[in-house]
Amino acid sequence: MISPMVIDFIEIRSENQSMIRTLILDTTTKVGETVLLKGWVNTRRDHGKIVFIDLRDRTGIVQIVASPELVEGLHSEDVIYVTGLVKARPEKLVNPKLATGTVEIEAQKIELISKSADLPFDMSKDELDVELPTLLDYRALTLRHPRVQAIFRVQEVVIDAFRKALQAKDFLEFQAPCITPAVAEGGAEVFRVKYFEHEAYLTQSPQLYKSLLVGDFERVFSVNKVFRAEPSVTTRHVTEVVSLDAEFGFINSWQDVQDMEEYVVRFIFTEVAKRCQHELEMFNATLPKLSDKIPIIKLREAQQIIFDRTGRDSRQEKDLAPEDEREICRWSLEEHGSDLVFVSHFLTKKKPFYVYPDPEDPTYAFSVDLIGRGVEWSSGGQRLNDYEQILKNAKEWGVKEEDIELYLQSFRYGIPPLGGFALGAERMTMHILGLKNLREACMFPRDMERIDVNLRKNNPAPSK
Amino acid sequence: MISPMVIDFIEIRSENQSMIRTLILDTTTKVGETVLLKGWVNTRRDHGKIVFIDLRDRTGIVQIVASPELVEGLHSEDVIYVTGLVKARPEKLVNPKLATGTVEIEAQKIELISKSADLPFDMSKDELDVELPTLLDYRALTLRHPRVQAIFRVQEVVIDAFRKALQAKDFLEFQAPCITPAVAEGGAEVFRVKYFEHEAYLTQSPQLYKSLLVGDFERVFSVNKVFRAEPSVTTRHVTEVVSLDAEFGFINSWQDVQDMEEYVVRFIFTEVAKRCQHELEMFNATLPKLSDKIPIIKLREAQQIIFDRTGRDSRQEKDLAPEDEREICRWSLEEHGSDLVFVSHFLTKKKPFYVYPDPEDPTYAFSVDLIGRGVEWSSGGQRLNDYEQILKNAKEWGVKEEDIELYLQSFRYGIPPLGGFALGAERMTMHILGLKNLREACMFPRDMERIDVNLRKNNPAPSK
Repeated sequence: MISPMVIDFIEIRSENQSMIRTLILDTTTKVGETVLLKGWVNTRRDHGKIVFIDLRDRTGIVQIVASPELVEGLHSEDVIYVTGLVKARPEKLVNPKLATGTVEIEAQKIELISKSADLPFDMSKDELDVELPTLLDYRALTLRHPRVQAIFRVQEVVIDAFRKALQAKDFLEFQAPCITPAVAEGGAEVFRVKYFEHEAYLTQSPQLYKSLLVGDFERVFSVNKVFRAEPSVTTRHVTEVVSLDAEFGFINSWQDVQDMEEYVVRFIFTEVAKRCQHELEMFNATLPKLSDKIPIIKLREAQQIIFDRTGRDSRQEKDLAPEDEREICRWSLEEHGSDLVFVSHFLTKKKPFYVYPDPEDPTYAFSVDLIGRGVEWSSGGQRLNDYEQILKNAKEWGVKEEDIELYLQSFRYGIPPLGGFALGAERMTMHILGLKNLREACMFPRDMERIDVNLRKNNPAPSK
Repeated sequence: MISPMVIDFIEIRSENQSMIRTLILDTTTKVGETVLLKGWVNTRRDHGKIVFIDLRDRTGIVQIVASPELVEGLHSEDVIYVTGLVKARPEKLVNPKLATGTVEIEAQKIELISKSADLPFDMSKDELDVELPTLLDYRALTLRHPRVQAIFRVQEVVIDAFRKALQAKDFLEFQAPCITPAVAEGGAEVFRVKYFEHEAYLTQSPQLYKSLLVGDFERVFSVNKVFRAEPSVTTRHVTEVVSLDAEFGFINSWQDVQDMEEYVVRFIFTEVAKRCQHELEMFNATLPKLSDKIPIIKLREAQQIIFDRTGRDSRQEKDLAPEDEREICRWSLEEHGSDLVFVSHFLTKKKPFYVYPDPEDPTYAFSVDLIGRGVEWSSGGQRLNDYEQILKNAKEWGVKEEDIELYLQSFRYGIPPLGGFALGAERMTMHILGLKNLREACMFPRDMERIDVNLRKNNPAPSK
């Protein structure tokens, strides 16, 4: 992730001053030199006549050795500038847990830049041992813990890899809008916005926009916010998430959508493996196991397999229950060596109006979900592209024509066969690292009870 | 922008079928071969026994020659699959305006995939000659015009280059939230969201988040939506825009912020020059002229220069008026050969509570705007990092402590000197290409009267 050798013009400018900042990870190459380090006191250990300070910057941690006088009053999270001599550690004192474990810094001068208050909990352990509400109440502070930071370094790579995968396939990146004029796909869980004299809504999905853009650019993707007013406080529901959306035209069949998604997911895993080895190790996490080809089965086949394996009969159900998703993943891993499995042919009537029914049995649709490690990672599929059929379905689904006016326009003026999919960035991060709660994978999670702070605490509901 | 040689698995799969799709730009390398092309009828010209079809896909346009029988009933925007022989054009018939001008396709078979309705206006001219309301009312259609598409290809590169520039400097990309719990910086132009039993707001800026994250990651950036409930319909105001935000710590002075911004802007221009030559030509646009170093002057110096040049006395004004911005850009170009100019040291009291006052004269702040081609492109500067000073200023500015709780937390626990800036993606696109209205640079512009469709038409204001 980090390029330790970046010395930018800021450091070059300070050449005119006394000394250039050295990044902590670079100290290993500067034995015998006097350097200027800038960072936070991570921990302090007093040993009589000497004090050890673990200094932290964005590239890592290094040990500072100082006299008590030099570091008087310093404690964790103080921001300090340290001038000191880089010394090689004797072999038996090398710390293999630190990337800079071969050196230590003999402090000559320490400047206090910003004083920290006393910490509300111990930040020095490998694992931050706090409950979820504390983790989030102190988000500005807990995001300093290396293991918490690792989550967002992985998430950055997931999102960056999603973009790179699709850029390599000629997809245009667009910025999907957040404010929408209407609720086209059912409105129970939508947030309302007072929009001048009108009512508007926060988008639940960029689906209509990415689909209509296939008529313009053939292939588009977006990294965008979607919003759900879920009135439930579970481990997997938040109100604002990052959706990784792709849609493309000139497909030959719905399986092209599945293939494109598989390519993207593999690309993401490859990038995470390459760029986040250290972060994965911190969580003792392994990337999901993949076989040569991610297995794919139809909903009804999945339900039959679950019945055969467990005796639980969900063969008439319209969707996979959470326990079904877990069981089909176990089957996929045992039978195909894959932590991921595609499930296709969900019920047409359970999907939105634009879903493409299988002509051989229109009860089921050319829809395809990706299930990974027991939960849904994405949904997608082929979409209708015939204007008259879309109009007919919209009517049947109770979708008002004037609410999808711009979308319909694209289909009125000629559009190729198309499909696409959406992956949840936080959900992928959560399941790559094996986190227990989706909120851990959201930098600033929003739910029914929290926007940064606990809403009930600071902002009691108005009395009626 | 486009890699014409991308043949992906979708095309490879169709090998099992009759033929692989050829992208239009690749036809020039396939003279003598029979190819399968997929795209839209761009234009049709009937010449008695032969008909010329200009076929369009995401890579460009190529001329198809067909008998009238083969293309019966076809017109603009129909989606067709064409099987035909690639033939070299005789030298005198080469069309220099087309990238595929050296070839044409002799159609053997044409399959109609999706029929278009008659177009509401002529799409075939080099410039789309419609008024702004029509351009936007027909957005799904007008986005097919090559010159309209070019705008969003440039915008994609602007945003992509912003990311690349900062990734190269070790900045972490984060996803700034849209829903905020409070209005910390003045609430006149904020959108309100009904958030379960509470009231929440759409973010006007990720400022507080990016600043607090400097305490965690040192260097962060985000590409995020910001919202302004501007009750005005001007050429430069929309309600939802893409903000390119960066913030970083361990600066030596506010000038480091200016330097980082200059580096980013130069990086963006270089990428646009490299990747968007064709798009720039379509608009007869040249990138802003830059001298070795973008000139920088203080607000009061700028006002003096304007007075000296024009006799217009704005030397007591608290900000630059639009005509001042235009005049200072004229000065910058004439005196320094630069279309861009930094203006620093705005009035502390006119800036938000976290602005860093110049210790030599606290009336003015270490803030710095970038003015380009007569308008403001960005604002930024050094921020306060002393906790007590921030508390004091918040009070003075009338900002409630509980509304900035998470932000304050970062400063309570030690944070380095910091600063940052924000650039508007649509505004940069607009001024690179010389567009007249910001809405042209928004794929789906939202303003007081429009969210995709004209709000007054479809959704009249409720009567009182």
